[in-house]
Amino acid sequence: MIETPYLLFLGDAPDMLAAKVAIGIRDWRPENAVAQIRLPGCGANLGLTDMTLAEAKAAGAKTLVIGVANRGGVISTKWKDLLIAALGMGYDLASGLHNLLRNEADLVTAAKKHGRILHDVRIPSVQYPIATGEKRTGKRCLPVGTDCSVGKMYTAMAIERDMTERGMKATFRATGQTGILITGGGVPLDAVVADFMAGSIEYLTPDNDPDHWDIIEGQGSLFHVSYSGVTLALIHGGQPDALILCHEPTREHMRGLPGYSLPTLETLRDIALPLAQVGNSDCKVIGISVNTQHMSEDDARAYLAEVSQRMDLPATDPYRFGAGVLVDALAAL
Amino acid sequence: MIETPYLLFLGDAPDMLAAKVAIGIRDWRPENAVAQIRLPGCGANLGLTDMTLAEAKAAGAKTLVIGVANRGGVISTKWKDLLIAALGMGYDLASGLHNLLRNEADLVTAAKKHGRILHDVRIPSVQYPIATGEKRTGKRCLPVGTDCSVGKMYTAMAIERDMTERGMKATFRATGQTGILITGGGVPLDAVVADFMAGSIEYLTPDNDPDHWDIIEGQGSLFHVSYSGVTLALIHGGQPDALILCHEPTREHMRGLPGYSLPTLETLRDIALPLAQVGNSDCKVIGISVNTQHMSEDDARAYLAEVSQRMDLPATDPYRFGAGVLVDALAAL
Repeated sequence: MIETPYLLFLGDAPDMLAAKVAIGIRDWRPENAVAQIRLPGCGANLGLTDMTLAEAKAAGAKTLVIGVANRGGVISTKWKDLLIAALGMGYDLASGLHNLLRNEADLVTAAKKHGRILHDVRIPSVQYPIATGEKRTGKRCLPVGTDCSVGKMYTAMAIERDMTERGMKATFRATGQTGILITGGGVPLDAVVADFMAGSIEYLTPDNDPDHWDIIEGQGSLFHVSYSGVTLALIHGGQPDALILCHEPTREHMRGLPGYSLPTLETLRDIALPLAQVGNSDCKVIGISVNTQHMSEDDARAYLAEVSQRMDLPATDPYRFGAGVLVDALAAL
Repeated sequence: MIETPYLLFLGDAPDMLAAKVAIGIRDWRPENAVAQIRLPGCGANLGLTDMTLAEAKAAGAKTLVIGVANRGGVISTKWKDLLIAALGMGYDLASGLHNLLRNEADLVTAAKKHGRILHDVRIPSVQYPIATGEKRTGKRCLPVGTDCSVGKMYTAMAIERDMTERGMKATFRATGQTGILITGGGVPLDAVVADFMAGSIEYLTPDNDPDHWDIIEGQGSLFHVSYSGVTLALIHGGQPDALILCHEPTREHMRGLPGYSLPTLETLRDIALPLAQVGNSDCKVIGISVNTQHMSEDDARAYLAEVSQRMDLPATDPYRFGAGVLVDALAAL
C-alpha cells in the first residue's frame, strides 16, 4: 500500500491531457489530494492549492505522486532536484511511468539514505498464488467491455461512490496503474505472470462481509485479441456475482486494431456471462454503462433508452447521468 | 533454440513416471535422442543405449537434457558432478525444473569457464511484443480442451507426425516446457507477462507458406478458472483456422478444482469457436480428440462413434487409434 494522503506532482506537464493520473486522484479520492506542486512552465492545473514540499508536509502529505505522463514514460531530469528533495523531507515517491523509479540511481541513493520507499505501481510487489477457484464470501461486481478503454474504471469508481453515499459497504479494487495510484493499492494485472493472473485477483478480492461489494476495475476486453486473456483471468479470478456491460457506441474499430469491429452488447453478454458462470453459477448481467462523451445529450438519452429496452436492463452513462440505476440493480440482487 | 541432438539425463529417477520429459523426447523426436545416461540406483529406463558423457559426445550429442522431474523440481546435489563434467566436455545443459540452472553458482561458474549455455526453459528468453492481430499467411491448428491435461500436446504432436508422413508441411509449436525440451524451442506461455501473452504466440507462429500448418500446443482450458486467461491468449494470438476439441470422459472434476465439473464438448465448441472467430472469422472446429486411457478398447470405440455422430465431427484417440481422421479433416479445409 502507498501511504496517503498525497502531494500531486504535475512537473512540467504541457496540458491537462498529460495529468490524467492526478485528475483521477482529485476526482475520485479528493481526501487523498492535499495539494499540487508544479515546475515553471507547467500548463496543467488541477484547481488545488499550490504548495511547496514543506507546506504540503506540514499539511499532512505522506507521498509525492508523479501525476503526469510524458512522452515515452520517462522520469525527466528536470524533475530530479525536486524528487530528491522530497525524499530528503520524508516523502515516499509513487509512479506509474514506464521507466521505473528504482532504476534511477540518484533516487535509489536518496531513498536509501532517508529510509523512504519508491513505489513503481507498474510492477507487482507481491508473489501471487495460483487461483484455487474456492468460493469466497461477500459480493463482487465486474464491468466488462466491448472494447478496451470504454470507461470500465470510471464505471467502477462511480458505483463505489454511489454505494458509499447510500451507506452500502463497497470497495473499489484497482487492477491497473491509474486505479492503484488513485486508491493507494491494487494489482497491476497486465504485469503479472500468466500463471498467476487469476490468483492475483482472488488475492485482491478476498472473503468479506456478506453484504460487502468489491467493485473490481475491468481490464481489456474478451474481444480485444491483444489483451483478452487478461480479461478472462479477471472474470475467473474475480468470481463476479454481477457483470456490467460497458460500451462506446461511436467507435469504428477495436482500439489499436484497425479491421477489427466491435461486438454488439448482445454478443458481449452471450460470451461473457457463460464464462463468468463457470466461476460463479449465480452470476448475472445487471446493467449497461455507456460512454456517451461523443454524443449530444439528446442522442445519449435516446441511445440509453433504446439500449435499455432492447436488452431489458438498466442503462446509464455514469459520468453524465450518474450510476444510480446500476447501484439500484446491484442492491436488488 | 536448444542445440540438438541430446543426451538424456535420467539421474536417480525412481521410476518412469519421473521421466516424462525424456519419454516425450524419445517418442516424438527420436532423432534428437542420441542416448541415455543414468546414475546408480536409477529406476527409469527409456530403452535407449546407455552412454558415458564421452561416448555420447563422440556420437554427436550437443546438449545434456535433464529429462527427469523430482519432488519440488530441485536440482539434486547428487547430479552436480555429472552436470559440471558435462559442461567441461562442451555440452550445453537444458532443464524445465522449477529451480533454475542459472541460480546454481557452481553450474554458472562451469558454464562461463567453458563457454556453454544453461537453458532454463521455464523462463522466457525473448522480450515478446504486444499482439497486433494482423492476419498472417499459412495455416494454424489449435487443440482446446474441456480441462487441463487432457492430451492437447499429444494430439498436436500426433497430427504433426501424421502430416509429415503424408508429405504435408507441418510444424509443432511448443507453448510449454515439455514441448520446448522435446523440440528445442518454443514459448513458455505460462511464464510470460500478461500483456505479452498473445504477442508471444504471434511471434511463435509467424507468416508461412500458404500450405504450411503450424500445429500449436494447447494450454489450460477456457473452463479452468486458474489458467483460462492463458488459453484465451493462445486462441487470439494463434489465429487458428482449425480447432480440435480435446476431452477425457472419465474425469470427475476439473483438474485440481474439486467442485468444478467439466463442460460438455458442445459447450466447449459453443464458447471456443465464437472467441476464435474474433481473431479469424474463417475458423472452424474440425474434429475431436479423446483421451481414452481409462476405457477399454470396446468402450473407447463405442464412445468415439457416439460422440462423432452426436457432434457431426471426426473423433479419435490419436494415441490409441492414430490421428488420421483429424489430418484428413485438416487437409480438406
